Amino acid sequence: MADPALFAARGSTQDVEEGRILAPKFDADGLITCVATDVRTGELLMVAHMDPEALRRTINTGEAWYFSRSRKRLWRKGERSGHGQRVIEMRIDCDQDAVWIKVEQTGPGACHTGRRSCFYRAVVPGQGGSFSLEFRDGEKVFEPQAAYGDEPSLGS
Amino acid sequence: MADPALFAARGSTQDVEEGRILAPKFDADGLITCVATDVRTGELLMVAHMDPEALRRTINTGEAWYFSRSRKRLWRKGERSGHGQRVIEMRIDCDQDAVWIKVEQTGPGACHTGRRSCFYRAVVPGQGGSFSLEFRDGEKVFEPQAAYGDEPSLGS
Repeated sequence: MADPALFAARGSTQDVEEGRILAPKFDADGLITCVATDVRTGELLMVAHMDPEALRRTINTGEAWYFSRSRKRLWRKGERSGHGQRVIEMRIDCDQDAVWIKVEQTGPGACHTGRRSCFYRAVVPGQGGSFSLEFRDGEKVFEPQAAYGDEPSLGS
Repeated sequence: MADPALFAARGSTQDVEEGRILAPKFDADGLITCVATDVRTGELLMVAHMDPEALRRTINTGEAWYFSRSRKRLWRKGERSGHGQRVIEMRIDCDQDAVWIKVEQTGPGACHTGRRSCFYRAVVPGQGGSFSLEFRDGEKVFEPQAAYGDEPSLGS
């Protein structure tokens, strides 16, 4: 794991929100939320997490690196599937606790289930106060078994 | 706080990823990440969090509700500023630990700093391995003091 001191200490609210110094806020688990969108279509592809080292590598290499909460390790998007993400631009939000990367998705899809995006179901109100899901843009664009094998997903 | 039993229990991976039952995964703090984009432009407006009650209210009312981690309370987007969010569609991701809402943003902007989006700065490599921020789309579209007063932001 990278030294969090790689990044500047958090200053005042004014410094964090209006300044030009990167001072990311990692949560209690040492992670920051990352949203990845397709740079061409604007489509939301996935939401994942970065530790300081994943954030550093992503900035320095231009390839998306994440930290797997389930496997507790750093991973480069596409290391198993070949479906990597080239980062065209990274943005950070007002209080610097979330990053947004606009990416060129290599290969047919970003989702380990075989879809282009992880967000292939809509939440709709059901009957009697219940909720259900409707598939939208849910067609599989690749065979996940062929891309990932039987190992569990790194994405969470 | 709503009873998490409002939502279905988590089933098998197959059920969670390929099913039609909403079974959201809340983190150790009882929250789920929510990404809000502008339904017209696709622009990423903000990233925030929902507890079970915020999620339930958002689905049932069509207005965005969040849970403030800093203030530890439920809030309706726009309750102070008047800049609410009407939810046109909600999606959930493969493992059901993040939601995406496509919204009509009421008023000029979503960010408490006075910008349209919270993501008004790009992260760029600096000199000697450092990192810095560049303002992009950073113009203020409203006066935050007038909209929010002096109270701290609810957004985090």
